[in-house]
Amino acid sequence: MPSYKLIYFDVRGLAEVSRFLFYLSSTPFQDYEVSDAEWLTLQGKTPYGKLPILEVDGKTLAQSFAIARYLAREFGFAGNSPFECALVDALGDQFKDYWGELFPYFATCAGIKEFGNSNILRREVGEPARDKFFTMLERVAKENGSNGHLVGDSLTWIDLTVADHITTLNNFSDGFVDDRFPAVLAVREKVMNDPRLTEYLAKRPKRYF
Amino acid sequence: MPSYKLIYFDVRGLAEVSRFLFYLSSTPFQDYEVSDAEWLTLQGKTPYGKLPILEVDGKTLAQSFAIARYLAREFGFAGNSPFECALVDALGDQFKDYWGELFPYFATCAGIKEFGNSNILRREVGEPARDKFFTMLERVAKENGSNGHLVGDSLTWIDLTVADHITTLNNFSDGFVDDRFPAVLAVREKVMNDPRLTEYLAKRPKRYF
Repeated sequence: MPSYKLIYFDVRGLAEVSRFLFYLSSTPFQDYEVSDAEWLTLQGKTPYGKLPILEVDGKTLAQSFAIARYLAREFGFAGNSPFECALVDALGDQFKDYWGELFPYFATCAGIKEFGNSNILRREVGEPARDKFFTMLERVAKENGSNGHLVGDSLTWIDLTVADHITTLNNFSDGFVDDRFPAVLAVREKVMNDPRLTEYLAKRPKRYF
Repeated sequence: MPSYKLIYFDVRGLAEVSRFLFYLSSTPFQDYEVSDAEWLTLQGKTPYGKLPILEVDGKTLAQSFAIARYLAREFGFAGNSPFECALVDALGDQFKDYWGELFPYFATCAGIKEFGNSNILRREVGEPARDKFFTMLERVAKENGSNGHLVGDSLTWIDLTVADHITTLNNFSDGFVDDRFPAVLAVREKVMNDPRLTEYLAKRPKRYF
């Protein structure tokens, strides 16, 4: 088995889906958290000046979605056919587009970068982005049979991505993703109740995002 | 062999890489170009209200990168190992980040949406985005051995993506991507001189983007 080292900051953020994938597959890995001081010297050595990165037997891979997709394919959480994998990827790309729209609200709530008053940003940025994206997700989840998965009949990295993202949105604003999106919330419930994650979810630090 | 129908507007844009993949693999496909009038009725039937979409035996896939990756994996242009595929994906994600930075300049030049004076946008948006992204690409291409590929020793969909994008940038502003980036330009040369593309490149309409 390869040696895996996941390098990121001490947040869930862009690495939590990959952490989930390691726990779901019972794959040993080093969950390495970089301090702010260490980041100053590490940054120039990363492929794109950003975290997370994943080291696989010492070879470095960057970009959170590329990392998650790679691990998901290795461990069997990418979809049950090439076409299912592509449908998962398409939702991932759609998530990225949504993320671009959401970012001023997200970054302000997370304290990463201040774009203005968070209440105003919630109304003018967060809610429109949420309504558009989650309405689409709800339709996708329903068309997939409301079986607790967004694609096919198995757990994939896009289910994990959406599940963890809802945790963050509801931390920022309680009930932000509410029961107007029951099929999406069912995806989240299925992830958060997966017995392979129970131990990790119980022991992980409480983190705002 | 599945029946493929690629649906997009009459531009290279977000579909040209997939068109390249069909020609590279000698795979028959329907290259369906939607008129503006037709788009009004089609839009509501697409997964995310956007083009391109790909129909594979009648099943619909959206998002240009998901489509390109799917076809690249089917036809053997995604990388020679799972890790190479992931490195290609990471560059794709990095391209998406760059694209978000470039967009005001791109959209203004392409006449999609006006963000201001194109000369000012070139200086304040286009050139900084180019310098950051292409400096990174140049390093990646050099570290890969300046062999005309960005990852490994075979043609992948990220080579195609970068090659076609340079065509567009240099249409917008002659010499925008110049010989400060020789290893990246070598990637483009290799794509544009691939004998499997000769016939298509000769016959395709001249398109600005």
